[in-house]
Amino acid sequence: MTDAFDSSTVDSELRENRDRHVTELQEFLRIPSVSADSRHHTDCRAAAKWVHDQMAACGFATETVETDGLPIVYAEWMQAPGAPTALVYGHYDVQPPDPLDEWTTPPFEPAIRDGCLYARGATDDKGQLFTHIKSVAAWLKVAGRLPVNVKFVIEGEEEVGSSNLDRFLADQKGWLACDIAVVSDTAQYGDGIPAITYGLRGILACEVTIRGPRQDLHSGVFGGAIANPANVLAQLIGSLLDDDGRIQVPGFYDDVVPLTDEERQAFAALPFDEHDFCQSLGIDAVSGETGYTTLERRWARPTCDVNGLFGGYSGEGPKTIVPATATAKITCRLVPDQDADKLTHALEQHLRERCPPGVRLEFSTYHGAPAVVCDTSSPYMAAARTAVEAGFGLPPVMIREGGSIPVVGSFKEILGADTLLLGWGRNSDNLHGPNEHFHLDDFHHGTLASAHLWAALNS
Amino acid sequence: MTDAFDSSTVDSELRENRDRHVTELQEFLRIPSVSADSRHHTDCRAAAKWVHDQMAACGFATETVETDGLPIVYAEWMQAPGAPTALVYGHYDVQPPDPLDEWTTPPFEPAIRDGCLYARGATDDKGQLFTHIKSVAAWLKVAGRLPVNVKFVIEGEEEVGSSNLDRFLADQKGWLACDIAVVSDTAQYGDGIPAITYGLRGILACEVTIRGPRQDLHSGVFGGAIANPANVLAQLIGSLLDDDGRIQVPGFYDDVVPLTDEERQAFAALPFDEHDFCQSLGIDAVSGETGYTTLERRWARPTCDVNGLFGGYSGEGPKTIVPATATAKITCRLVPDQDADKLTHALEQHLRERCPPGVRLEFSTYHGAPAVVCDTSSPYMAAARTAVEAGFGLPPVMIREGGSIPVVGSFKEILGADTLLLGWGRNSDNLHGPNEHFHLDDFHHGTLASAHLWAALNS
Repeated sequence: MTDAFDSSTVDSELRENRDRHVTELQEFLRIPSVSADSRHHTDCRAAAKWVHDQMAACGFATETVETDGLPIVYAEWMQAPGAPTALVYGHYDVQPPDPLDEWTTPPFEPAIRDGCLYARGATDDKGQLFTHIKSVAAWLKVAGRLPVNVKFVIEGEEEVGSSNLDRFLADQKGWLACDIAVVSDTAQYGDGIPAITYGLRGILACEVTIRGPRQDLHSGVFGGAIANPANVLAQLIGSLLDDDGRIQVPGFYDDVVPLTDEERQAFAALPFDEHDFCQSLGIDAVSGETGYTTLERRWARPTCDVNGLFGGYSGEGPKTIVPATATAKITCRLVPDQDADKLTHALEQHLRERCPPGVRLEFSTYHGAPAVVCDTSSPYMAAARTAVEAGFGLPPVMIREGGSIPVVGSFKEILGADTLLLGWGRNSDNLHGPNEHFHLDDFHHGTLASAHLWAALNS
Repeated sequence: MTDAFDSSTVDSELRENRDRHVTELQEFLRIPSVSADSRHHTDCRAAAKWVHDQMAACGFATETVETDGLPIVYAEWMQAPGAPTALVYGHYDVQPPDPLDEWTTPPFEPAIRDGCLYARGATDDKGQLFTHIKSVAAWLKVAGRLPVNVKFVIEGEEEVGSSNLDRFLADQKGWLACDIAVVSDTAQYGDGIPAITYGLRGILACEVTIRGPRQDLHSGVFGGAIANPANVLAQLIGSLLDDDGRIQVPGFYDDVVPLTDEERQAFAALPFDEHDFCQSLGIDAVSGETGYTTLERRWARPTCDVNGLFGGYSGEGPKTIVPATATAKITCRLVPDQDADKLTHALEQHLRERCPPGVRLEFSTYHGAPAVVCDTSSPYMAAARTAVEAGFGLPPVMIREGGSIPVVGSFKEILGADTLLLGWGRNSDNLHGPNEHFHLDDFHHGTLASAHLWAALNS
């Protein structure tokens, strides 16, 4: 390319309109687009429309595409012939907001306190997605064009497994062709330490219900003579981990690619204060698989976590029953090269083999996704380093993340594209928990970094 | 005593007014007197007043006595000098009605179907208590007197541990002096097999909460590096029972009085169809401590049942969190000579010793009560046999029960009185579960048996 792109006027535009962007983001956050709860699907559609209108207003050719579930907003600006094409992915849906009573201000009434914007979705992912929307809008307003071609795919089912996204990607493979994908749905390494994430864990998710008697029974009259579903469930769940934090499902570690010495050294070189980590979470000690550091456990080792446990009486006081059922929601984080389907099956087998007579075990699965580790030496990665440094004023550290973004695997598999994981948020932002928030500085720096990325990808 | 009491006119009175008694009972059942839920304490007081008015209308000297919790209704008719004194105990409070969606008709809108009265408390204990109220009312109406002196103690905290009853019994020891206590809060042995219960299991009740991080955390970002309260709880609960159904708390069986060969033979002689038992509960097999029959497991062996399990996300779909807390409600049924306090402490110790670092264990206790086994050869027991046969038309079988009625131990300890456990209900009445009901025939036969008991106790 012969053009030289000067980001400075775009920077000025973004600095001047910083407050307006926050106000617009608050509008987006007011929409309770909880995809896991079907009662909120109308709100999810309202969020899709809001995003659609934003993209169209930027000057992007925009379409809202129906799926078997919630719609996907697709937008493109393809007027940089010969330049690379970047595909921005984000999601307009959010996690359920409960426990509601732990929020200082209501989850869907965005509030600014101490330089942070509090709302469900503030960082995951409405706020982070919005940085890219505002950066392309600024380029088009100030320069009348973008340095590269940019496409957006914004879905509404990320928090429930993106079950209709892969089909969309496969069906629209030609339309979506790109050189590199860009996703801002991760975090900086720490306060003032911007990062590029080159690895993610995968996930498998399932729910196991133990069914005993037809209905709750008196524990005096029947207790001791029938299997208690809650006791059985506890025994089964208790069998999943040993005292060393090792998952006991047969074959669970067979396909795990061990950490290299180089990576272990790189992790160890990152600043990490275990005392501060514990304090920030309100725990008195870390815990996990024996033989690994906390960063290794979070980024590069598989897990088996119960996300929810329920059955029988949960009200005030005692209730002397044998509950009819008990349920656990379980997710396992996976690392290269573990296979979600294979391990889901192994987990189910492990539980079924241990399930005693007198109860029935029901097992259902949600989405699964493989772990991803990207090439850190690509030119796209170099452009991302330049852009992050320009936006945040510091060179980023290279990290992995413990979370899962299934779409990253799909981009590789279906579109043949690597993904730049550029997280503007922080792990302390309480994503998925009460009082989720986004630092306004991070929002602004992320928007600047995004604007620089388009130039850096064409230099 | 020189009087001869003729029960036949009382019988006629009770037969003629059978329907009216059902209508009156429905009134009582409409009051949602759920003692475990403080929002229903006004209703509990309304139930106390209803009972008070009934007793006063019979001609009993009646008082409602305040306690530190819900009031106790005390009533007496003491105009049979020289005759024995019976103390009837019952309770006007009921279990919580949930799960509400499993009730065919609402729990506090009594409905008659197929010869049964459906409502929370229909059998436990409003319906059974009411038989004694109607029998004394009939005697006083028809004969102008009762064959014996009768006192009533009707409390409102039975379902939450009767925590204020013992103090009342101790404080009013003189007032409450009696020769024999009468409690109808158990069941017949089976359909058409009336029974006298001579033994009850005791109980200990506690709640254990595992607290981890200050709030729910993202299971991708933090999973694997911090102890998960739900996983820890499951492991702790799973450690309570071994594969033979034996409780693993050290010392749990130390004080258990083994069943005698005679009792095992008597239990074995009772009709019991395991297939029918399983079918009636909707399970495919019984389960419990190895080496014991189902009746032995239900009546004479200790248990450790989880009554409720909750923590983390229980809504629709997945939610990828490490929950901040997880809780289990636990009750253990006890047998002679196990001590509730000692074993509660042992249970807490067992859990604390196994609780890993990184989480905190909170342990709280509810009421405890010892098991009771009564003398089957006393004259009171003989009177009860006569009365039950007169009411139900068949001689009763002698059984034990798996439930706990702490007051029976208190009557023995504080008042020095044995208790006649005359259960008019059935185990299939769904007491403590949804669709609790009372067979109208049982209600009527119980009322007749009660009327005969007063005569038989003075013959």
